[in-house]
Amino acid sequence: MKRIGLLGCGAIGTQIALAIDTGKIPGVLTHIYDNSKYAATELASKLNNKPLIVENSHLLSSNPIDIIVEAASQDAVKDVALSVLQNKRDLMIMSVGALLDESIYDVLSDACNHFKKTIYLPSGAIAGLDGLKSVKDELESVSITTTKHPRSLKGAKFFETSDINLDAIDSSTIIFEGTAKEAVSMFPANINVAALLSLCGIGSEKTIVKIIADPNTDKNTHHIEAKGKFGKMTFTIENFPDPNNPKTSRLAILSAIETLRKYCSDDIQIGT
Amino acid sequence: MKRIGLLGCGAIGTQIALAIDTGKIPGVLTHIYDNSKYAATELASKLNNKPLIVENSHLLSSNPIDIIVEAASQDAVKDVALSVLQNKRDLMIMSVGALLDESIYDVLSDACNHFKKTIYLPSGAIAGLDGLKSVKDELESVSITTTKHPRSLKGAKFFETSDINLDAIDSSTIIFEGTAKEAVSMFPANINVAALLSLCGIGSEKTIVKIIADPNTDKNTHHIEAKGKFGKMTFTIENFPDPNNPKTSRLAILSAIETLRKYCSDDIQIGT
Repeated sequence: MKRIGLLGCGAIGTQIALAIDTGKIPGVLTHIYDNSKYAATELASKLNNKPLIVENSHLLSSNPIDIIVEAASQDAVKDVALSVLQNKRDLMIMSVGALLDESIYDVLSDACNHFKKTIYLPSGAIAGLDGLKSVKDELESVSITTTKHPRSLKGAKFFETSDINLDAIDSSTIIFEGTAKEAVSMFPANINVAALLSLCGIGSEKTIVKIIADPNTDKNTHHIEAKGKFGKMTFTIENFPDPNNPKTSRLAILSAIETLRKYCSDDIQIGT
Repeated sequence: MKRIGLLGCGAIGTQIALAIDTGKIPGVLTHIYDNSKYAATELASKLNNKPLIVENSHLLSSNPIDIIVEAASQDAVKDVALSVLQNKRDLMIMSVGALLDESIYDVLSDACNHFKKTIYLPSGAIAGLDGLKSVKDELESVSITTTKHPRSLKGAKFFETSDINLDAIDSSTIIFEGTAKEAVSMFPANINVAALLSLCGIGSEKTIVKIIADPNTDKNTHHIEAKGKFGKMTFTIENFPDPNNPKTSRLAILSAIETLRKYCSDDIQIGT
């Protein structure tokens, strides 16, 4: 059975740990770490099979573990990803935005190749990446339109320099249109979706992002369009927020659990 | 480098072999087989790195190979799949329809687990299976509407007992609506798409298939809708036929190549 180490014991890390503990993911959670010792202790207290709490994030991969699951932050990825691969462990990354820095992406990609290890990026709150990566070499355009309730956009850096008053919006309104590269600095909450799409397709400078505030919606909706010699793909994903963690789409957690389940299983694997 | 054996040297097998030969897939094609010795010889003649042509399909997996790629027929899957796993080789299956037979699916799934091997099913001519399998436990409904030019539907068993005259259709017309289970016996050309969707989601008796003949289209379009507690997903894939093989969507070949590329690579793997 695969041995799993967890870096980050917040809302997402907790749900992954529970999925392992209840057998939905056929692996063993052996070691966990969080910057907050309290968070790690809290998580351990919820589990039937108690993992060891290690004293720093680098100790996770020095133990005999198959895969480290990062569910912490972009900084955590920058801090530990390379040493995880050097220690010959696989890695699953939730804070995908960290890989938009091309120098980091290239270093980690080379390290995977060199150490014969794999980094897994779940599809997050979107879907269709199976199709998109298959046609990567033939893609001519990729765009994503994200529609959220205005309250879900509050606090984004974009509004520091914008005249838009979110509270005054009374119908569906385009807030932003630009490249994924511009979007990720302006709307950090959208970073993982924009990063996944960029990495999977034509990069963050060519991927177009549109953000719409709609006071009449209770969902986060991502609408993706990709065109090329192969034809055209359109994906619309309407996500309800996760009841345990309203900031995260339920699909983002389910896709992480499925990625890890697949990693831990010898079975029929459906999908590219 | 991963060693690959190819079962089936037709149009799809040939394109996979060429992708290996040109380095797009970082593996080595070491052995090939086709019921037609002529087809196997023809394929070998097109390759710079000549594979060995074996004398029967079972000899593929008795050689020191990592993965067998089936691109032959449902019968070939039924004939060799179990022995491939018993010989401790992984397997990629193109003729996914074979797995709709539940007894075959269960035997192969158990064998994967027992022999610690994996069967890979590429996403074929559709996309979004990453999302669908993530929400599998929460799915309430899955449907697919396939729109094709009437000539692409000709010869289907369905028309043996139907009054519909394909030649007389002059506008978009619903030809069939029923379960995936009914559809696969009536429209064999749709079998892989319906099978993938059924296996990935809620099974062939609950998955709804609609087939539309449209004399004004030059594409094959698949429109998939899935609903559940997570929200809703809608995928529309408009495929141009492959120029080398008009019966197959270009995406079906590209997704097979991507699945095999991923299998052969230690790298950053994007998508669930």
